[in-house]
Amino acid sequence: MELSGTRTSLAGEIRAFEFINQVQGEFAPNLEIQLFTCCLECELASTMMIVDDVENGSLGPYQDRPRTFPNMRSKPYTPLIFRILMGINVRILVILLLLGFGYVFYIGASTSPIIVFVFSVCIISFLLSIYLTKWVLSKDEGPPEMAQISEAIRDGAEGFFRTQYGTISKMAFLLALVILGIYLFRSTTPQQESSGIGRVTSAYITVAAFLLGALCSGVAGYVGMWVSVRANVRVSSAARRSAREALQVAVRAGGFSALVVVGMAVIGIAILYATFYVWLGVDSPGSMKVTDLPLLLVGYGFGASFVALFAQLGGGIYTKAADVGADLVGKVEQGIPEDDPRNPAVIADLVGDNVGDCAARGADLFESIAAEIISAMILGGTMAQRYPSGFILFPLVVHSFDLVISSIGILSIRSTRDSSVKAPIEDPMAILQKGYSVTIVLAVLTFGGSTRWLLYTEQAPSAWLNFALCGLVGIITAYVFVWITKYYTDYKHEPVRTLALSSSTGHGTNIIAGVSLGLESTALPVLVISVSIISAFWLGHTSGLVDETGSPNGGLFGTAVATMGMLSTAAYILTMDMFGPIADNAGGIVEMSQQPESVREITDVLDAVGNTTKATTKGFAIGSAALASFLLFSAYMDEVASFANESFKQVDIAIPEVFVGGLLGSMLIFLFSAWACSAVGRTAQEVVKEVRRQFIERPGIMDYKEKPDYGRCVAIVASASLREMIKPGALAIISPIVVGFLFRVLGHYTGHPLLGAKVVAAMLMFATVSGILMALFLNTAGGAWDNAKKFIETGALGGKGSDSHKAAITGDTVGDPFKDTAGPSLHVLIKMLATITLVMAPVFL
Amino acid sequence: MELSGTRTSLAGEIRAFEFINQVQGEFAPNLEIQLFTCCLECELASTMMIVDDVENGSLGPYQDRPRTFPNMRSKPYTPLIFRILMGINVRILVILLLLGFGYVFYIGASTSPIIVFVFSVCIISFLLSIYLTKWVLSKDEGPPEMAQISEAIRDGAEGFFRTQYGTISKMAFLLALVILGIYLFRSTTPQQESSGIGRVTSAYITVAAFLLGALCSGVAGYVGMWVSVRANVRVSSAARRSAREALQVAVRAGGFSALVVVGMAVIGIAILYATFYVWLGVDSPGSMKVTDLPLLLVGYGFGASFVALFAQLGGGIYTKAADVGADLVGKVEQGIPEDDPRNPAVIADLVGDNVGDCAARGADLFESIAAEIISAMILGGTMAQRYPSGFILFPLVVHSFDLVISSIGILSIRSTRDSSVKAPIEDPMAILQKGYSVTIVLAVLTFGGSTRWLLYTEQAPSAWLNFALCGLVGIITAYVFVWITKYYTDYKHEPVRTLALSSSTGHGTNIIAGVSLGLESTALPVLVISVSIISAFWLGHTSGLVDETGSPNGGLFGTAVATMGMLSTAAYILTMDMFGPIADNAGGIVEMSQQPESVREITDVLDAVGNTTKATTKGFAIGSAALASFLLFSAYMDEVASFANESFKQVDIAIPEVFVGGLLGSMLIFLFSAWACSAVGRTAQEVVKEVRRQFIERPGIMDYKEKPDYGRCVAIVASASLREMIKPGALAIISPIVVGFLFRVLGHYTGHPLLGAKVVAAMLMFATVSGILMALFLNTAGGAWDNAKKFIETGALGGKGSDSHKAAITGDTVGDPFKDTAGPSLHVLIKMLATITLVMAPVFL
Repeated sequence: MELSGTRTSLAGEIRAFEFINQVQGEFAPNLEIQLFTCCLECELASTMMIVDDVENGSLGPYQDRPRTFPNMRSKPYTPLIFRILMGINVRILVILLLLGFGYVFYIGASTSPIIVFVFSVCIISFLLSIYLTKWVLSKDEGPPEMAQISEAIRDGAEGFFRTQYGTISKMAFLLALVILGIYLFRSTTPQQESSGIGRVTSAYITVAAFLLGALCSGVAGYVGMWVSVRANVRVSSAARRSAREALQVAVRAGGFSALVVVGMAVIGIAILYATFYVWLGVDSPGSMKVTDLPLLLVGYGFGASFVALFAQLGGGIYTKAADVGADLVGKVEQGIPEDDPRNPAVIADLVGDNVGDCAARGADLFESIAAEIISAMILGGTMAQRYPSGFILFPLVVHSFDLVISSIGILSIRSTRDSSVKAPIEDPMAILQKGYSVTIVLAVLTFGGSTRWLLYTEQAPSAWLNFALCGLVGIITAYVFVWITKYYTDYKHEPVRTLALSSSTGHGTNIIAGVSLGLESTALPVLVISVSIISAFWLGHTSGLVDETGSPNGGLFGTAVATMGMLSTAAYILTMDMFGPIADNAGGIVEMSQQPESVREITDVLDAVGNTTKATTKGFAIGSAALASFLLFSAYMDEVASFANESFKQVDIAIPEVFVGGLLGSMLIFLFSAWACSAVGRTAQEVVKEVRRQFIERPGIMDYKEKPDYGRCVAIVASASLREMIKPGALAIISPIVVGFLFRVLGHYTGHPLLGAKVVAAMLMFATVSGILMALFLNTAGGAWDNAKKFIETGALGGKGSDSHKAAITGDTVGDPFKDTAGPSLHVLIKMLATITLVMAPVFL
Repeated sequence: MELSGTRTSLAGEIRAFEFINQVQGEFAPNLEIQLFTCCLECELASTMMIVDDVENGSLGPYQDRPRTFPNMRSKPYTPLIFRILMGINVRILVILLLLGFGYVFYIGASTSPIIVFVFSVCIISFLLSIYLTKWVLSKDEGPPEMAQISEAIRDGAEGFFRTQYGTISKMAFLLALVILGIYLFRSTTPQQESSGIGRVTSAYITVAAFLLGALCSGVAGYVGMWVSVRANVRVSSAARRSAREALQVAVRAGGFSALVVVGMAVIGIAILYATFYVWLGVDSPGSMKVTDLPLLLVGYGFGASFVALFAQLGGGIYTKAADVGADLVGKVEQGIPEDDPRNPAVIADLVGDNVGDCAARGADLFESIAAEIISAMILGGTMAQRYPSGFILFPLVVHSFDLVISSIGILSIRSTRDSSVKAPIEDPMAILQKGYSVTIVLAVLTFGGSTRWLLYTEQAPSAWLNFALCGLVGIITAYVFVWITKYYTDYKHEPVRTLALSSSTGHGTNIIAGVSLGLESTALPVLVISVSIISAFWLGHTSGLVDETGSPNGGLFGTAVATMGMLSTAAYILTMDMFGPIADNAGGIVEMSQQPESVREITDVLDAVGNTTKATTKGFAIGSAALASFLLFSAYMDEVASFANESFKQVDIAIPEVFVGGLLGSMLIFLFSAWACSAVGRTAQEVVKEVRRQFIERPGIMDYKEKPDYGRCVAIVASASLREMIKPGALAIISPIVVGFLFRVLGHYTGHPLLGAKVVAAMLMFATVSGILMALFLNTAGGAWDNAKKFIETGALGGKGSDSHKAAITGDTVGDPFKDTAGPSLHVLIKMLATITLVMAPVFL
């Protein structure tokens, strides 16, 4: 499975982002520690040892260095797109922008006033996000030692990002060629023939949508990381003044990327939709019908999920390999605290937070929203055959309102209100929760309004009310999901306390208890999801909407509306999620730069809150994936039916081949999780060996007398995680195609029509179910282990350094790849499987 | 979920099996260790502390005790059935036996000559098994210190078994009443009406079959344990003379229970079948048709799986809680070897091997074979509507031949051949493998013969050949499964070595690597199973057999035949499996009684081989469960169709409720595994606390100056595991009934006929798929951790006592409940779900 070509070309690329930086100085003298000089350096991989020797020779003893802060950033990196933009004359830029706006509004106006509304809201939210960035960037970067650390993190993160996305983009182009080939050689569907879209047009449309989706997903990831590597140090610096200000900086930075990510998903789909509408002359006689238009968008969803999968895998492996490696030697063996500057892997760990959590989560949520909007639009298309076209555009409107209400929620978190007067540290969770409450109340209102606006039809005058209730079901499901995740991962509740208690009898019982907790935690979410799927389906079913034969057909659209309800506060949820890694990074910078205890306390509290919000948003992400997968599944069946020009309404698992498809689908989840976890394990072992080597070869590190070689750890993790992301990613993409094709051939020879499509459908369904359960298990177990450790660190069961604590750290280590690599990758995988089967359907027929 | 009534009544029952035994003596003076007096005692739970005090007062300092071996078994336990038998006059017994034989052969002759053949083979194999027992029991029990330890183990095991089966039998009677009620109030099926079987008769038939199945399963479990607690000490004793003799004793003891278990499954079903045949006047005009007869047997399968589930849960929790508890304090904290007499939990650990592995595995395999025979007979009944009745009786014949060929395989392992001449220790694995090869060659031959004999039909003269090939597919699948399991769990191969290597970087990476290995190991078996399901189905489909409409319908029967092929060497496989715990126990006794190094070496080798055979038979058990589940699934659909008198051929997962059923089915597997693991974790923690308490309160234990209180550990584990088995067991039994009933009601109100049955079908299918994967994961991960530890103990990576070894022990500890509690319970659960849905089908309609 390993692409050896990729591997060899990596070495060259990695060179490009490695940097030689040295940060030296006298840090926090009030802490009564020895003079500490922190030195960051990263040599070119090929000349690592030579540079090491030269440095050791020329710089002399570590502790005698001058206490200055020379600018060590040899070549500050500016992303290509900014360089291009900066190269263009400002006037031309303005003209280009205006032209763009003009085009967008022209096609919008030609399509539907609703599209114009969507465009306007997106553009306003982009303007707001620019304001938020300016606000965040206007904050100071703190003392030079903070800025230096931050710069090292930034360079590491941006370098990795560039290499990673270089690899991903190559794979995306390759896949685009494959898709082009498949679409050029497949037979056209009856709809296409009747609408006059030829084989070639259809191929180019799919490939263009795929590439646009991939590009937007990449930009979403980049934006997430771009802001986090800039906000982290500003949060650290703000923490020196007040907790509330630090919180506000982190929230606004998170809000910036949340608005950009959601806005881009919405506007991207809207532009594609409007362009196709105008270009193909939809709804004019002899052309395509508007109800079939959403099927053309699936390429966008697939492009987005393709990039998100690799972003999440690569980033997830990076962040957790660095974290696990750093913890195993630092915390467990040497007994030094987390983010201690003596740990050679500490910078790699901090870089990981940005590439793993921020960039990857941005791509993940972008993909979630895109996939959910597209599948709901496809279902809406089915409804719009008899009812208003508002059914198609409804998802875009819901997410436009999402942008509005989430902005209000984000802005409702202010630092001005007598922050100086108030006592020590407020509970940041309460503040975030208040913002969430504001958002959720507004969501209920705007959601109800949207259903009345777009889903009202005279044939079934009360249908919109049923759908509003479906939305409410979704919103309640989201809320309950967040609550369940909190119950299982917060140490205020029974489960984590029991887990912590089991640490007192050793490493083994801690792991057994954590695994059991994780497995058990799947039960309640599944019950909740079951109830919401069925109730939303029945609300839709009884809404009064009927198909041509007069039988009710609103059921699936009801589930779709519930999914939209669940995601109707996505931008705020994403803000809370982005908040986590920014706060985590800020804490790391504070620790690294040896700030006073009071500052650390503030960032520690923010970090703990960030852990909780990260865990809850994961629960939220799975819940929406579970609901959305059912939509994507029916979209797939619609698509197959339309391609094959015969009814495809059933997936009968009593047929052996179909059952085997299910077996293979579930197995795919297990194998994918295995490879994701083992990738982290293998990479972490490399880190452990490197860190151990450094501690042995430079015994002075522990006494701050010698500097650790941070750069080498960064380089090792980067190259290893890029290598390791290929295998699970390729598995996820190749296996449904291979299975579908094989069974298509088998079905051809055994006289079983549509066998390939049916087997893939079962594979998709079983993979979804197993994927939801596995992701719930991995995420919750990981979160619970993390917080059990934190609970012990509060002094319970012997506190820090006790045997219980050591056992709890083992649990935390095991949980790291579970909750931050395999678990989140599974969310993406579930949706990518759905979109890949949609796009690749011609292969199976 | 906890039945508090059961819990309180337990205290009383536990008293019944607790015993006061003290074994004292001077052990193995040649080992230059201090005089060690081993004392086993187990006080009544209620008076534990008092007895403790009295003993401590009266017996004086431990090391000054007299070096005698008084008979400490206060009241040796004889099982009720033996007491009754012994109470009967021998002549009456002989007359009863003859009458029984007469009855059996009379009904057999009235039914079919094939049944007479089956009866004869079963009775011959029972006679052979009596010969094997006599042979084993004629071996000496070794020196008194061995016998004393063995008696303590025997009393602990039989006491626990009695209490456990007391609880299980109460639950079985309760459930029998529930079934009776359901069947008395349900509507009869059209077939029953036409055959004149009334509602009441049908109810009594089902309940009687259920109770007989439960009873036989209980006896199978008891037999497994009965022989193992007697064979263990004889193997230890034989190990003092020669490795080959020890091996032979262990194999013959295992062979005894294997023959009894398989023979009882076959003869039980044959007697039921023949009795119903004669009693109901089957095939006479106006009566039931023989093709519907197998459906009456499902109660037997459910009874067997019901008992097997609780036997496996209770025994699995017992054995692993004791093992984990003993290891955590003994090996990890105190650094003493496994089975060291200083460990207070050591006797509980040895008792656990017998109740967990022997008794539970006996019940498990009994249930597997019964369920597989019955489901294949139901499918055969469908075929026999147009073809000979040999299709129905085929499974019974296959397992009769299984008894014959496995006996030959068992007897082919002999000790006589110049064992004294040969060099040190032969590889016992090679010897077992040779026996297996003999068996498998014979299996291919007899299987081919059976298909020609019973499945030949003039309408399709080459059909038998196709089915013979199906059998070959099954046999090959079994062989490949065994090979795959060995690849992933044997330290001669890559995976376990990589796992061992990951121990060198700490506890955390070891666990991550083990989890990944386990998850990854699901892939190959699933591919193999997929290929065999499809190829067996197509071989059957193209066999030329057709239904009334002329379309081929032999496909499913082909899968059934493949399953039978896989299980056609079941008795030999069970022998190898039983060999494991007997060897393990023998090793424990040798260690406890401080035998010389050379004797330990022999039992160590046998133990290691036992580990491998245990792991491979688990792979085998899952493979057959995976194949059989598909049969049980179609049997269920046939049953529903026959009850509801309408066609039920499809389970369409595109219906939301059906999808939800699948979601709930997969979730059931996760929750069940969670509860099974956490039960072990919780119980182990109690053991850890008790052992730690003893080490603190009796500091002399470590220097052999004070005796550990073994009995207290036995009592704690026994009461805890009985308490803990209720929750997961009840979940497994209640949830399909509740789900089926709820959706039946929902379907009733929403006008959706058969909704309950469909949802349960999806639940069953998804649970089966998830269960297969989860069981593969748990078993393989557990086995791999165990052998990674053993690999390090051979001296690799620092060897015993190194940090790698400690990390490997953590992995082994985590693996224990995986591979010996949750994993095997899942095998049983999968089949129990199938049989419970068969029996409870009237509730869902």
